[in-house]
Amino acid sequence: MTPEDVRLRATGPTTGLAAGYAQANLIAVPADWAYEMLLFTQRNPRPCPVLDVTDAGSPHTVLAPGADLRTAIPRYRVWENGVLAAEPTDATPYWRDDLVAFLIGCSFTFESALTAAGVPLRHVSQGRNVAMYVTTMPCRPAGRLHGPMVVSMRPVPADLVDTAIRVTARMPAVHGAPVHVGDPAFIGITSLSTPDFGDPVEAEPGDVPVFWACGVTPQAALMASRPPFAITHAPGHMLVTDVSDTEYRL
Amino acid sequence: MTPEDVRLRATGPTTGLAAGYAQANLIAVPADWAYEMLLFTQRNPRPCPVLDVTDAGSPHTVLAPGADLRTAIPRYRVWENGVLAAEPTDATPYWRDDLVAFLIGCSFTFESALTAAGVPLRHVSQGRNVAMYVTTMPCRPAGRLHGPMVVSMRPVPADLVDTAIRVTARMPAVHGAPVHVGDPAFIGITSLSTPDFGDPVEAEPGDVPVFWACGVTPQAALMASRPPFAITHAPGHMLVTDVSDTEYRL
Repeated sequence: MTPEDVRLRATGPTTGLAAGYAQANLIAVPADWAYEMLLFTQRNPRPCPVLDVTDAGSPHTVLAPGADLRTAIPRYRVWENGVLAAEPTDATPYWRDDLVAFLIGCSFTFESALTAAGVPLRHVSQGRNVAMYVTTMPCRPAGRLHGPMVVSMRPVPADLVDTAIRVTARMPAVHGAPVHVGDPAFIGITSLSTPDFGDPVEAEPGDVPVFWACGVTPQAALMASRPPFAITHAPGHMLVTDVSDTEYRL
Repeated sequence: MTPEDVRLRATGPTTGLAAGYAQANLIAVPADWAYEMLLFTQRNPRPCPVLDVTDAGSPHTVLAPGADLRTAIPRYRVWENGVLAAEPTDATPYWRDDLVAFLIGCSFTFESALTAAGVPLRHVSQGRNVAMYVTTMPCRPAGRLHGPMVVSMRPVPADLVDTAIRVTARMPAVHGAPVHVGDPAFIGITSLSTPDFGDPVEAEPGDVPVFWACGVTPQAALMASRPPFAITHAPGHMLVTDVSDTEYRL
């Protein structure tokens, strides 16, 4: 599938789709929250590496010039006062002229590089969304915005953990190296089998859980900080861009 | 000299001082221009890699916790409506409670790494500030802010240009790899002997001019975009931080 195919036709999580193209998280907030959101991303570059910021009201991004951000994502989340209000497949009825959209790097972008390096992707082979967890690691606040870091987890064979670190460290714009390896409890995750977002993913014998900072982090900030309105992607349901993932490799 | 020594005592350009510590550009703008400045930096990461953003009115940065940003820099520039209004050594009388300060990576930070790799620094051996030029390369605008990219130039022996590129490419937070090598006219520089900022630097026989994106770029945006007020460092007179330059090496 081409990126445009995915944008027009995908209905579920986008992991593994349009391999070789960068994927992005969406968080759109009213203009009077845009400075704090941009500052939040600047102060938390591991979970929130910004790939593009739109002008207020514009549903268009340089990352996918032909796409309409209101329809290009398979599933959205609409937030009111920090509470999930709707989960539509078309955000057009909810879009506002004062929304500023942030496109944030997504770890799905480094999955092709992991595959090429021989690191198996358990969630892809199991046909599932990636598993995501809210941690006890706080983000650095920015004005009214605060919240914990969210991570994605991939079980990695122990002898390939160093490879997974090396490959992803070269891609900081899509979260870069893991933020933790090995002990879920150390970052406040009590049960790997009950992720906060996405699907549980089965580890194979000898796998070690590896955690990367995740672009769902701004959604945790919405829940904690309760801005009046926001539109995001649904976790795992990303904007597939027209940009080659090699653009984000050092 | 320690970073604190430089902040307390230096009166001239900071190139070569407190080797091994990161240096930073300053641009402080009123809060109602802060979003556009932050967006400008996000859209122009080569010249404007942000290392820290202060809260409005605060003269303190995580990069140098003991420093007062109003006095820690050897020389400042005060801007009114895009015109240079004063060049004080103490910014305290000019500081305002609504100023948001941006600390932006500086190429002086990679000079220790260049020296360690055997690349000579002509401006340092000549006891001069680095040479900086306004180019014809436009920055990507952000709201009311627009302007051309400014570059710093270092003459590099031809057989060491590849080394200089390799070393600096590993430090994107302090401008990274050169934006141009070899032909000043190609980026709109008509005369290397008359830099727009800093000092002219003599090339040795066999040297090639190498151009890096420069943190004076926001000052060119001030001149072009004319916000009512701003305070910056004077070119070459940087904030010396307490952060090791190795923090910004990949």
